[in-house]
Amino acid sequence: MQLLETAFWSAGGSRHVMAERLGFSKSKANTLIAGLIDQGMLAEYGMQPSSGGRRAENLQLNAGLGALIGVDIGATSLDVAILRPDLTLLAQHGEAADVRQGPGVVLARVRTLMRELLTQSGLSAKDVLGVGIGVPGPVNFAIGQLVSPPLMPAWDSFSIRDYLREEYAAPVFVDNDVNLMALGELWRLRRSLSNFLVIKVGTGIGCGIVCHGEVYRGAAGSAGDVGHICVDQEGPRCHCGNVGCVEAMAAGPAITRMAVDAANAGESAALAACLREKGRIEATDVGEASRAGDAAANGIIQRAGNLIGQMLASVVNFFNPSHVFIGGGITGIGPLFLAAVRQSVYQRSLALSTRHLEIQYTPLGMQGGVIGAGVLALHETLKVRGVAP
Amino acid sequence: MQLLETAFWSAGGSRHVMAERLGFSKSKANTLIAGLIDQGMLAEYGMQPSSGGRRAENLQLNAGLGALIGVDIGATSLDVAILRPDLTLLAQHGEAADVRQGPGVVLARVRTLMRELLTQSGLSAKDVLGVGIGVPGPVNFAIGQLVSPPLMPAWDSFSIRDYLREEYAAPVFVDNDVNLMALGELWRLRRSLSNFLVIKVGTGIGCGIVCHGEVYRGAAGSAGDVGHICVDQEGPRCHCGNVGCVEAMAAGPAITRMAVDAANAGESAALAACLREKGRIEATDVGEASRAGDAAANGIIQRAGNLIGQMLASVVNFFNPSHVFIGGGITGIGPLFLAAVRQSVYQRSLALSTRHLEIQYTPLGMQGGVIGAGVLALHETLKVRGVAP
Repeated sequence: MQLLETAFWSAGGSRHVMAERLGFSKSKANTLIAGLIDQGMLAEYGMQPSSGGRRAENLQLNAGLGALIGVDIGATSLDVAILRPDLTLLAQHGEAADVRQGPGVVLARVRTLMRELLTQSGLSAKDVLGVGIGVPGPVNFAIGQLVSPPLMPAWDSFSIRDYLREEYAAPVFVDNDVNLMALGELWRLRRSLSNFLVIKVGTGIGCGIVCHGEVYRGAAGSAGDVGHICVDQEGPRCHCGNVGCVEAMAAGPAITRMAVDAANAGESAALAACLREKGRIEATDVGEASRAGDAAANGIIQRAGNLIGQMLASVVNFFNPSHVFIGGGITGIGPLFLAAVRQSVYQRSLALSTRHLEIQYTPLGMQGGVIGAGVLALHETLKVRGVAP
Repeated sequence: MQLLETAFWSAGGSRHVMAERLGFSKSKANTLIAGLIDQGMLAEYGMQPSSGGRRAENLQLNAGLGALIGVDIGATSLDVAILRPDLTLLAQHGEAADVRQGPGVVLARVRTLMRELLTQSGLSAKDVLGVGIGVPGPVNFAIGQLVSPPLMPAWDSFSIRDYLREEYAAPVFVDNDVNLMALGELWRLRRSLSNFLVIKVGTGIGCGIVCHGEVYRGAAGSAGDVGHICVDQEGPRCHCGNVGCVEAMAAGPAITRMAVDAANAGESAALAACLREKGRIEATDVGEASRAGDAAANGIIQRAGNLIGQMLASVVNFFNPSHVFIGGGITGIGPLFLAAVRQSVYQRSLALSTRHLEIQYTPLGMQGGVIGAGVLALHETLKVRGVAP
């Protein structure tokens, strides 16, 4: 249903504006909109500023349609959120988690959090319109299952959808975590960009692809698996079996390893102090040391940024996106990382590909995952119900 | 117009089949088809085999709509063809050319060939429905101009469209040569594949991308510029200014250079003999020596194939296509090259990306360029006329 689609992606508008966007006559739009309001799909909210005469109404998806649950399962974290149909947050909770504990342990915790957050929001399972779940591995989107996920072998072919079916009558949709970040940004942008990438740098490195205005998942659902692109033929061996994968050399664990090495080699008083006090060094600690002017920390961030930029240069030459948004845990590391990525991309990509290219941190930040999961839940639920194209 | 689109992409069918494909009622389809036949857009050809009762008609685009001209300008070659609306060839001519001579020289020759081939086909300029032209550089598709083409600097911002406007009333469309190869294969496949790549290896290396069932050109029209992806950080300097670009190390000129080196170093009697007799060695000569069992030639082909496979591995990890079709001058070099490409891709890409991946030479072969140009001409002309979506 084009009207609902427009109301959702454009975050509302007047009857007049919607009719114009869709090229419908005023009377056709009015009839269709009246029908959708009767069905409880659309509702009028607030008032739009108007240039004169009576103030125009603002049509949006009916908030009474129900709540959405967005879940973002990372390799080492877990975020659950309850969202309204306009994607604003009703309740949210995030905590550390270890995805390698397997689906039994992790999903039991997800289920508990879902219940608690619904109760907090004054809702129950029957108020749920749809559930969206992001996972850090390749997903067969049609059947909602992970396929040979390297970071989480115990999840191979596990049906998250079946696991939640008993508790929720609402449909459950599963996608790769970075695809959901891309979907979230696409929604934030009101689809004003058609061809862009979202790179997530955390425990691993993944890429969400938006092509022709839609999230692109590839022939087998593994598109965007950029973590194993080779950036050094003489590089260290990766868990995938190949050498010099960018993920093995520049993701979170590699940054931590370089920092521990620098601390132990006496190259950085700040990192050595951190290691002594906390017993470990995280990427954010390296960022903090860098901001305080620590040369070793700066060197590590520069090296990681350059390697990721080198991988990105190949991807930019191939895909020619208008924007690259970088998200995930790495965003806490500060501006030096972004500068190093940019330097490497601009140096290695063709002029035409980078002339108008923008590289920045993801505007939705750490909420991108759950918001994207909410977008997935709503959009796919409307499709399943036959009211969205 | 969905019906014309279907008739074109599906190479015809009965009223019944077309109505079914589009989800139209039988009576709606009949009315629309009668209208299009009246307008001279569709016509009935031959007869479809039928399972019983009267034999079904075969509706296709009306051959009387006019002829298409497809032009494929390569770095070192020039192909012009006159095609029917069903993309069968009426006349074709190919010859060596040097694109660096600039648009004046090259397009004057194109214009002469267009006239000659039309005459041969018993047609004149007024019978031309549309013209499609492929060029070996990045194109701003909307305005039909080349943008900073590295192989053909004299063509920068030159309007091929304006050049031909005096002679032909028909619209002229310009696109990158590899995009047209991809469009040609998409047509050959009747759009049965949605996500695949066409790699052209000749003087340079380029890639045509089909994504979500459409040719993807990127944010600035430079998508698929894979020739400058780095495959060796210690590699030789490329004309683009960077080092280790796959184009500098594995395209036609690199193969020739390696062959001349092998001949001069006394590593290959066959290549030395070729150099002595012809004064030069071409990629096809290396292929011939390889098929005759020459070890040096085999080594050169294997090395070029492995380097291109290494670049492709990155692209396959990122894009997860179902098929990669390899075309261009390299296809004359024989099966060993394809085997080396495959070996490299399967070794370096993730299992999920390659599980169902097929890598083969382009089925349309050397005619892919002019056929793709014909598809572009017809499809865009129908769009301009407001009868195709």
